[in-house]
Amino acid sequence: MTRSLGIDIGGTKIASAVLDHDGTVMDVETTPTARGGDLILEQIAAIVDGFAGKYDLPGIGIAVPGDVNPITGIIRSAPNIGWTDLDIVEHVRALLPAEAAVRVDNDANAAAWAEYRFGGHPRTDSFAMITVGTGLGGGFVINGRLLRGATGAAGEIGHLALVPGGDSCPCGSRGCWERYASGSALQRASVAAGWDNPTAGQDVLSAAGTHPAAHQVVEGVARDLTRGILLLSSALDPSLVILGGGLGSDRRFLAIAQEALAGAEVTPPRSRPQLRTAVLGPLAGAIGAADLSLEPADQKTEPEASRTGTNSADKVHLSGIIPQVPNYA
Amino acid sequence: MTRSLGIDIGGTKIASAVLDHDGTVMDVETTPTARGGDLILEQIAAIVDGFAGKYDLPGIGIAVPGDVNPITGIIRSAPNIGWTDLDIVEHVRALLPAEAAVRVDNDANAAAWAEYRFGGHPRTDSFAMITVGTGLGGGFVINGRLLRGATGAAGEIGHLALVPGGDSCPCGSRGCWERYASGSALQRASVAAGWDNPTAGQDVLSAAGTHPAAHQVVEGVARDLTRGILLLSSALDPSLVILGGGLGSDRRFLAIAQEALAGAEVTPPRSRPQLRTAVLGPLAGAIGAADLSLEPADQKTEPEASRTGTNSADKVHLSGIIPQVPNYA
Repeated sequence: MTRSLGIDIGGTKIASAVLDHDGTVMDVETTPTARGGDLILEQIAAIVDGFAGKYDLPGIGIAVPGDVNPITGIIRSAPNIGWTDLDIVEHVRALLPAEAAVRVDNDANAAAWAEYRFGGHPRTDSFAMITVGTGLGGGFVINGRLLRGATGAAGEIGHLALVPGGDSCPCGSRGCWERYASGSALQRASVAAGWDNPTAGQDVLSAAGTHPAAHQVVEGVARDLTRGILLLSSALDPSLVILGGGLGSDRRFLAIAQEALAGAEVTPPRSRPQLRTAVLGPLAGAIGAADLSLEPADQKTEPEASRTGTNSADKVHLSGIIPQVPNYA
Repeated sequence: MTRSLGIDIGGTKIASAVLDHDGTVMDVETTPTARGGDLILEQIAAIVDGFAGKYDLPGIGIAVPGDVNPITGIIRSAPNIGWTDLDIVEHVRALLPAEAAVRVDNDANAAAWAEYRFGGHPRTDSFAMITVGTGLGGGFVINGRLLRGATGAAGEIGHLALVPGGDSCPCGSRGCWERYASGSALQRASVAAGWDNPTAGQDVLSAAGTHPAAHQVVEGVARDLTRGILLLSSALDPSLVILGGGLGSDRRFLAIAQEALAGAEVTPPRSRPQLRTAVLGPLAGAIGAADLSLEPADQKTEPEASRTGTNSADKVHLSGIIPQVPNYA
């Protein structure tokens, strides 16, 4: 029976899940993330070793919070865990029998895939997941396939320029969406509104149902979230947007975000996506990575090399026809 | 031999193309668009009649500048040609043998498909076309399939909120991308900069190579175009962006847009898409519509009805597992 292992490497925890071919989670394990890239590699080796003793593992998927190329298997940068230009796939493959498939993906993409596949959400061919936690991330499933983009960076929407010339972001840019719509943004807005303590954001969220001033703070963040969602809708027209992450999957926040989306001016009038919360919680990344490790090779984004070639289709043949077309500017 | 007819209904011209199965354009015809929705329907009937006398036409595709649902075949709104809630597919099907396939698509999507299929551009699985003409439109091809979105509105990026609270748009909203990056925007900016005549935009474009002030005006529009392209890149990470439309496919404009994109700050650093001009010109919509008319039915966006169902994949089975997961917040 086909089983695969997903390992989701977060800044504070590593969550691992063994997945059966039908989406049944057979086993899970979580462990605090070690400090230092090399120590984390040792943790991965121990996790793989432990599960490989119990299960046949034809596929292993790794989910990483950072800039990942799923084709080459290279993690270009994952600042939270101290990796730069690391060939994680080679590293993990060395631990395994030669025929095992090893894949790596961005954690938000892996989580989006898990929710799409196993979240029990309404069926759709245009699915977006937005992870609203400390920061903001996302992943899209289009026509049944994870959208990775040319370099694996599709869905990295946290630094989308929501407000040109807006608030400074540690990334060096200004007006990034995650400065306005994230758990950190809620925390900052709460402190600014006078909730003067280390858990201000959570307190404000708890108070939002009964305390108008708290509701207003949450509403501000929800409005900035839905402004970005409407930007994405202009491009992708998803029918469904799943909110994940600590803040996004909170039902109190969902209700306020749904109100904000329903109240947003949308012109020209177009349909608004349905908003729902994620259901797989902190296991989503591991589940998605496990499932993606077994996807057929043709589902991957195109290799860098082929992008310099030409399309397989011939150029259209217009000779002898164009002269019949009058006066096109 | 399979042939299909594409009819691209523009505000001023109707362009028609008969396409062979390998992308050869066999025949074209253009005619000024009549004034009034009913007259245009008569024009379509005459065009179909004319070509049906010369060719076997198993497929007919219609491209329309407006809000179209390619599944239902209903044009919800096409203000430039006076159609609202028109079942164009039913109308055209009535002109044809029962077995003919009739499809309708948004014109920008049809043009994007044509460039992707027959433009001879570098091969890519993440392809965006942006039509920069009087207004701004777009279409995306993801993993080899046209992205239509949940309601057929994917790629309708002209009214994406580039500048929150920015310039008023006739659509009723503010800060829409096409107010800043389009032929009309160039015309307005040129007049504002002192080119006081009816063809100010074209004059400025002609003068941009030699006249610094003219270059600056074009550069402003190009910069606003690339700002929107970078927004799309955050979401979709395309490797290639094709610029079409009167302004977009002008090589003088392309050069300035390429400079603007290369000079834009992109943080965190990510790859920028390659910019190229469209090659099929004003026939792109007709060619794309012709080719799309023969696509398999499963390539269409999902029917409205199925979106209330649940995903075919089972919900993930977590019973007996979750208790082993410590303390997830």
